[in-house]
Amino acid sequence: MTETSRRTSIGAQRNLQSRDAILDAATAIITEAGLAGFSIEAVARRARAGKPTIYRWWPSKGALLLAIYELQKPDLRMPDTGKLEEDIFLFLKGLINHWRNSPAGAIYRSIVAEAQSNPDSALAIGNYMTDRYEWIGAILKHHQQRGDLADWIDTDIAGEQIASFAVARLIMDRLERPDEDLRQAARQFAKGLRTQ
Amino acid sequence: MTETSRRTSIGAQRNLQSRDAILDAATAIITEAGLAGFSIEAVARRARAGKPTIYRWWPSKGALLLAIYELQKPDLRMPDTGKLEEDIFLFLKGLINHWRNSPAGAIYRSIVAEAQSNPDSALAIGNYMTDRYEWIGAILKHHQQRGDLADWIDTDIAGEQIASFAVARLIMDRLERPDEDLRQAARQFAKGLRTQ
Repeated sequence: MTETSRRTSIGAQRNLQSRDAILDAATAIITEAGLAGFSIEAVARRARAGKPTIYRWWPSKGALLLAIYELQKPDLRMPDTGKLEEDIFLFLKGLINHWRNSPAGAIYRSIVAEAQSNPDSALAIGNYMTDRYEWIGAILKHHQQRGDLADWIDTDIAGEQIASFAVARLIMDRLERPDEDLRQAARQFAKGLRTQ
Repeated sequence: MTETSRRTSIGAQRNLQSRDAILDAATAIITEAGLAGFSIEAVARRARAGKPTIYRWWPSKGALLLAIYELQKPDLRMPDTGKLEEDIFLFLKGLINHWRNSPAGAIYRSIVAEAQSNPDSALAIGNYMTDRYEWIGAILKHHQQRGDLADWIDTDIAGEQIASFAVARLIMDRLERPDEDLRQAARQFAKGLRTQ
């Protein structure tokens, strides 16, 4: 190993440590103090990092909050049971339970609040959600290939319809409503509202 | 007219004047200063009213903001053309244009932001949205009576699906996306995602 590459490697390792320290500090602050106590300055102080270091990786409060949010969901998948209606139901139920039973719901709500007055954070959550809609859409494409999702469906828009239902439940504080609602919504998404 | 009834009537009139002054002041403040500058105290000062007077009518910041929001939409109806898919499309387009072209969008975004950390405001917007879902649902019931909306549909949940799509567009700052998206979403809501 040359002197240069060793130095780079130590630098890279320090960077990773610093990144982790920032994410840990940000998670602790948002959990303990909520959005009102959350600022890049407070995170920098707690992580013993410089504000420019934080901004280098996350250009807005919203972007940093989304990074923490992502860390909260190690194992959330779009189900792929092969039955369209069931997959939509399981996805809605899984996401809503995740929001109810982990700090993820509160963190996501903070991101939404922040994004309503901070254009950089609005851009961050808008881009993030576009990715999520496409991610749901990719699973729906499997159904399209199997022939149980209609050919003319725009799978990204379908992803947006399904995710928007869950997001609205979260931000309107309606997560506690019965699972039967989610089953009915899944059926209505799959079969459509009109008389066949 | 007795002395008592005259006094009551003057009192009632003063109440209405005071109510209007409060709503005007609240509208001016949220439009000029946004949520960061909006407080019951600031509204009271500008309207020359007491804070208890405001709280008597609107128990939370969210409730007062919802009252202003409602004043912004004098003529927004759920369309009833008789064609289900077209009605859903026109509703989505009308609501999104209304949010884009009046202060209503910014005010609604402030209410959402406020509701993420203030439980009283969360309750206010949750109740308000439940009413809106039922209001859309009532129009969908006409379609059910005519036979073009399936019998097994829960019209309130259908209202929630449609409204949630629009609300998510607003809060993710995606109102500028093309109308074609809304037409596609309306078709997918009406016909369903699955192969018929």
